[in-house]
Amino acid sequence: MTDPVPAAALAAVDPISVIEHRVNYSETDQMAFAYHANYLVWFDMARTEHLRRSGFTYRDMEVAGTFLAVTEARVRYRQAARYDDLVRIRCWAREIASRRVIFGYAVERAETGELLATGETALVALDRQHRLSHIPDHVRALLRPIADPVRL
Amino acid sequence: MTDPVPAAALAAVDPISVIEHRVNYSETDQMAFAYHANYLVWFDMARTEHLRRSGFTYRDMEVAGTFLAVTEARVRYRQAARYDDLVRIRCWAREIASRRVIFGYAVERAETGELLATGETALVALDRQHRLSHIPDHVRALLRPIADPVRL
Amino acid sequence: MTDPVPAAALAAVDPISVIEHRVNYSETDQMAFAYHANYLVWFDMARTEHLRRSGFTYRDMEVAGTFLAVTEARVRYRQAARYDDLVRIRCWAREIASRRVIFGYAVERAETGELLATGETALVALDRQHRLSHIPDHVRALLRPIADPVRL
Amino acid sequence: MTDPVPAAALAAVDPISVIEHRVNYSETDQMAFAYHANYLVWFDMARTEHLRRSGFTYRDMEVAGTFLAVTEARVRYRQAARYDDLVRIRCWAREIASRRVIFGYAVERAETGELLATGETALVALDRQHRLSHIPDHVRALLRPIADPVRL
Repeated sequence: MTDPVPAAALAAVDPISVIEHRVNYSETDQMAFAYHANYLVWFDMARTEHLRRSGFTYRDMEVAGTFLAVTEARVRYRQAARYDDLVRIRCWAREIASRRVIFGYAVERAETGELLATGETALVALDRQHRLSHIPDHVRALLRPIADPVRL
Repeated sequence: MTDPVPAAALAAVDPISVIEHRVNYSETDQMAFAYHANYLVWFDMARTEHLRRSGFTYRDMEVAGTFLAVTEARVRYRQAARYDDLVRIRCWAREIASRRVIFGYAVERAETGELLATGETALVALDRQHRLSHIPDHVRALLRPIADPVRL
Repeated sequence: MTDPVPAAALAAVDPISVIEHRVNYSETDQMAFAYHANYLVWFDMARTEHLRRSGFTYRDMEVAGTFLAVTEARVRYRQAARYDDLVRIRCWAREIASRRVIFGYAVERAETGELLATGETALVALDRQHRLSHIPDHVRALLRPIADPVRL
Repeated sequence: MTDPVPAAALAAVDPISVIEHRVNYSETDQMAFAYHANYLVWFDMARTEHLRRSGFTYRDMEVAGTFLAVTEARVRYRQAARYDDLVRIRCWAREIASRRVIFGYAVERAETGELLATGETALVALDRQHRLSHIPDHVRALLRPIADPVRL
C-alpha cells in the first residue's frame, strides 16, 4: 500500500466528492430544523466517501494502524435543512501536512442548489496506542488539497 | 474478582436503580416529542448506573474481557417526553442465565410521576473476539433478578 | 387527496421497500458495532421511503394534519453491523387499522445478504393537537399489509 | 416578563454555569472516544442550564415566541473523553447584541480537571415564522457576557 501512486490514477481523482443524504426524522428538532450537531455527522459521511473515491478507505487505514481523530471543527449554518430534504454534501482536502489534514465541506439543498452550511474539520493521525503519528505517504499522495470552491 | 460476594453486601443493593435525565434539544423531533430511539439510550444510561450500584462497573467488565451486546429490545411508549422535561429512568434485572441477562426499564416524568414508557433489553456476554461467552460469576451473583415492578 | 386510489396504481406498488445505508462513524460504539439504537433510526428512514413508494409522503401527511407517533418498537439483533458496512433495510406494512399501523423491517448486510436484524414498530395517528386520530383513508388504501417475508 | 431585572438579582447570577454529564455508550465510537459531534450536544445541554440559572428558561422563551438558532459552531478537541467518564461542561455568554448571542464552553474530565475541549456557538433570535428577530430585553439583561475564563 506504500507503492507510489501512478500519476494517471491521481489525475483521474476528482478533488471534490459529493454525497447525498435524506434528512431523517431523528435528525429534526422541535424547531423543525435538522439539529445542528448532525452536520458534523454529514461531514464525516462525506469524508469517508471522499477517501474512498481518492483511492483508499478509512476502514483500511484503521486496520493498517492509522486513526484520524478530529481536533477542530467549525460550521457556519446559513439556511436550515428540514425533514425529508435531500441534501448534497461536498468534501475536499484543504490542507495536508505530515500529521494533520484539514477537510472543507459545503452542504446544499439538492433540489435548489441553495447553500445551507459550510465548514471544516482538522484531523490528526494517531497510532493504535492513540499517540500522535504520521499520515501514511500513500494517503498524503492521494489527498491533494485544493483551494476552497466556496467561502467557508 | 470472582470471590463470593458477601451476603451483607448483596442485601444492601437496591434491586431497582433510578437515574434522572433532562431531555435536551438534540433529542427532540419536529413533533416536539423526545424521538423514540433515545429511549434505548436512556435505558443504556440507566443500566450502566444499575451495574455500578450493584457493585461493579460495565467499564471494568469490558477491561476484564466480557462485553454485553444487546440481542433484543422492546419499548412501549405511553406518553411523550418533551424538551426540558426531567425524566426518571428505573432499571432492574428481570432474568439472568449463564450467557444472557434481561433488564427491565420504566421511564417517568419526574415532576408528575406519570409513566411515559416501559421496556426491556436482553444482552448476551461476548468475549474479546466477540464470541458467545459467559456472564462472570460475580456479576451473576450481584445482579439479582426481581419481578417487574410495573407491567412492561 | 381522499379520492379513491385507482386499482392499477395499487397493483404497481411493491409491498416491500428497500433502502441502502452506509454505517457511518457516529453510529459505531467502542465494541466496533453499530450501536443498537441506530436500528430504530434506520427503520424510520426505511418507513419514510416505504410511504413515498406507496404513493404519498409522510411530510405531506404532517402538512395535512396527521402525525404518526411510535407506540411500540421491537428489535431482534442477530449479527452486528460495522463501520462502512452497506446495509439494506426492507420495510413493509404488517397490519393496519383505523388508528394504528404496524410496520415490519429486516436489515441485511448488502454485500452478503446476511440477516442482521428484524423488528417492528407500531404507530398511531395523532392530529395537530396530538390527540388520537384516524389514519386518512387514502393512506390506508395505499398501505396494503402483507405477511412477514421473514420471521421477526 | 419585560420588567427591568433588579440589580440584586443580577448580582446573584454566576456568569459561568457548570453541568456534569456521564459519557454513555451511545456516545462512544470505535476509536473508544466520545464521538466529536456529541460535544455540540453537551454544549447545548450546558447552555440550557446556563439560561435557567440566569433566571429564565429557553423553553419559556420558545413559548413566548423567540427561538435561538445556531449560526456558527466551533470546537477545539484537546483530549478524548471516554465511556463512563464524568465530564464537566462550563458555559458562559461571550458576546451579546440585539439579534445574536455567542456562548463559550469548556469541557473537563471531572475526576482530574483536565481540559478536554473548548468551543463556542453563535445563535440568532428567530420569531415563530423563523424570520430574524430580536433577543428579548429581559434576556439581554440577564445574559451578561464575560471575558473567556479559558482560551477557546
